[in-house]
Amino acid sequence: MALIVQKYGGTSVGDVDRIKNVARRSIAAQAAGHDVVVVVSAMSGETNRLLKLVSQISDRPSEREQDVVLATGEQVSIGLLALAIQAQGGKATSFLGHQVRITTDSTFSKARIKHIDAERIVEALKQKHIVVVAGFQGQDEQGNITTLGRGGSDTTGVALAVALKADACEIYTDVNGVYTTDPNVCPAARKLDRISYEEMLELASLGAKVLQIRSVEFAMKYKVPLWVKSSFTDDPGTLVCEEDKSMENVLVSGIAYDKNEAKIDINGVPDTPGVAAKIFGALSERNIGVDLIVQTASHQGRTDLTFTVGKTDLPHARELVERVAKEINAGAVETDVEVSKVSIVGVGMRNHSGVAAKMFQVLSGEGINIQLIATSEIKVSCLIHAKYTELAVRALHTAFGLDQPPVEG
Amino acid sequence: MALIVQKYGGTSVGDVDRIKNVARRSIAAQAAGHDVVVVVSAMSGETNRLLKLVSQISDRPSEREQDVVLATGEQVSIGLLALAIQAQGGKATSFLGHQVRITTDSTFSKARIKHIDAERIVEALKQKHIVVVAGFQGQDEQGNITTLGRGGSDTTGVALAVALKADACEIYTDVNGVYTTDPNVCPAARKLDRISYEEMLELASLGAKVLQIRSVEFAMKYKVPLWVKSSFTDDPGTLVCEEDKSMENVLVSGIAYDKNEAKIDINGVPDTPGVAAKIFGALSERNIGVDLIVQTASHQGRTDLTFTVGKTDLPHARELVERVAKEINAGAVETDVEVSKVSIVGVGMRNHSGVAAKMFQVLSGEGINIQLIATSEIKVSCLIHAKYTELAVRALHTAFGLDQPPVEG
Repeated sequence: MALIVQKYGGTSVGDVDRIKNVARRSIAAQAAGHDVVVVVSAMSGETNRLLKLVSQISDRPSEREQDVVLATGEQVSIGLLALAIQAQGGKATSFLGHQVRITTDSTFSKARIKHIDAERIVEALKQKHIVVVAGFQGQDEQGNITTLGRGGSDTTGVALAVALKADACEIYTDVNGVYTTDPNVCPAARKLDRISYEEMLELASLGAKVLQIRSVEFAMKYKVPLWVKSSFTDDPGTLVCEEDKSMENVLVSGIAYDKNEAKIDINGVPDTPGVAAKIFGALSERNIGVDLIVQTASHQGRTDLTFTVGKTDLPHARELVERVAKEINAGAVETDVEVSKVSIVGVGMRNHSGVAAKMFQVLSGEGINIQLIATSEIKVSCLIHAKYTELAVRALHTAFGLDQPPVEG
Repeated sequence: MALIVQKYGGTSVGDVDRIKNVARRSIAAQAAGHDVVVVVSAMSGETNRLLKLVSQISDRPSEREQDVVLATGEQVSIGLLALAIQAQGGKATSFLGHQVRITTDSTFSKARIKHIDAERIVEALKQKHIVVVAGFQGQDEQGNITTLGRGGSDTTGVALAVALKADACEIYTDVNGVYTTDPNVCPAARKLDRISYEEMLELASLGAKVLQIRSVEFAMKYKVPLWVKSSFTDDPGTLVCEEDKSMENVLVSGIAYDKNEAKIDINGVPDTPGVAAKIFGALSERNIGVDLIVQTASHQGRTDLTFTVGKTDLPHARELVERVAKEINAGAVETDVEVSKVSIVGVGMRNHSGVAAKMFQVLSGEGINIQLIATSEIKVSCLIHAKYTELAVRALHTAFGLDQPPVEG
């Protein structure tokens, strides 16, 4: 007998029939001999409906009050799911974040879980209830309702798995696992049986939307085996787990792309200390995240500085950067939204040189110009013109041998 | 400076514009120098939407889980109203039932408030915040979410007024006060400036829907002045308060009618001890409330028993009564849904005889047959054929001098 935490996303509980389906699955897991805790998101569309109401009332809503409104989405889901389990003959009890003392900091709208007191859950499990917990929400030390940010229900699931010392955490979604790349872009994309936490973390950061980054960090930190499964099929899914020897044989595990960045060039930046700090300090003060950064070699005391920001931040960022550029006596500021970041990820890169070089070769072989490059130990990212995204993903997928399943052993 | 609790019903917060209107009103009350606590219901239609979801999942929903779902309606309202107040430049904080420790018993779906710990409200008022509290909800001693039943937000408002020792509780609705009778039925109906708690209680029990019965009981018990006002006009409304001398000069304050009852006749009931207990015991066991009861004089050891139940309970009640009738060897059971209960209410009746007789006279003068009669110290109710309802109400309104305002002094 094992203790399993199952997390179902918004599409999995998107209507009454789907909620009944989730009820069936959780009852089946219990019938297979397990203790079952189910974490659910708001029904798909519900969070957006609530956000729309908020935006009709306020341009700059207080995040405390917005969290009060948004937290209702998951509350409806847990009540309905508990009722559906009961209607199918099961025993179930629902709990809100504050009822199982999911204590967070007070960063409304993106709070971090500090502590969970699982006592009430353990008690209900002892009475053979399926325990249904609201994802995405908690309360701070003062008893205010908080939410964990988009995708926060994944984090709730993993955090509960940690607090309960669960044997596994299963994240149910509308795809049946983690893929080598987006199957909509690359028909040869394959589902992975296993992937390491670190690779998953990179893929999630790079635009693969299957898991929320923080939930993977959490799972990695506490070594919780994480399954990504579909709530609509019986596919075993993908296991996200600790790296082992066999994973190192694969150079590249996955390919991600992200079209949500925009590029900013500042020409003729005076190459003196403190200039970069001035520019990026101004952006960070306004909470504008910067991703890739490249500075060209100095030429006659001047350099070109290029970096990317989120597309939605571009208008604001451009305004700021133009002001700073004037102050520091730099040249023209140019922006480009027709860019895309394509990345390869794999723990095998650590012990194999030449992976980055091969990526550049493949792209150049397709006539694709590389505008910016960034690397980490297990990742290489290239910024290219957006129109080449699909071409680049497919070419890399083939070149790194992802079109075929890996050889056993 | 006074402390005022304002309660706004579902139609008053029915859409974004109406929520903004409530924000304006609460800010105006604060600007007039008052401490303001606002209690809100779910946006109109929301509770029914949630109930529909529940009914699609379960025929016999657990009331604990149904309460979890229903309590979200008020939660959305408080967040949105706090945001609307802030958007208009005011300071506001919202609180859920459990956050201000509205502690109830564990009777899910119709819980009773046992205790309120107003500390957090007082603190927020000190900081000049308008405090927005979710109506209709609380939590029991075990921390489960409970709801107070339909109209429960009125009770929350009055209970908060009691706990905070408020100077007044204002109940905002879509009518501008309590009327002598339903203006849709009787064009001569007049708004009352004042009415006693007891009269209001009778009118509420008799089908006038302007206030929830329990909230009036609460206000009467703790002598909280209760104002019924419209959220759409500046009419001063109706004050529900303690009885005083001048009220006794008015024989009848209001006329109510109720078409939601059905009549059951049992013929030839053996006139032996324990028979009535058997019949009404069976009904009460199934939670079927009985209103008017009349038993005819015994004739040859047999009697006829007539009573009314809610129309929705009739199918179930009929089945039960027919079974018992067979057991006790009674005669035929007949039912009638074409009935209506018309009632006159007034504290002046206590000191004036002949009021009931006058009512019977008026009805008989219109050719209306009286099927059942019930009286209390300040009320007379008659069951008549439903088709005469409007005629009876109008005739009584005129006969008891309600068409004209009362003479001063």
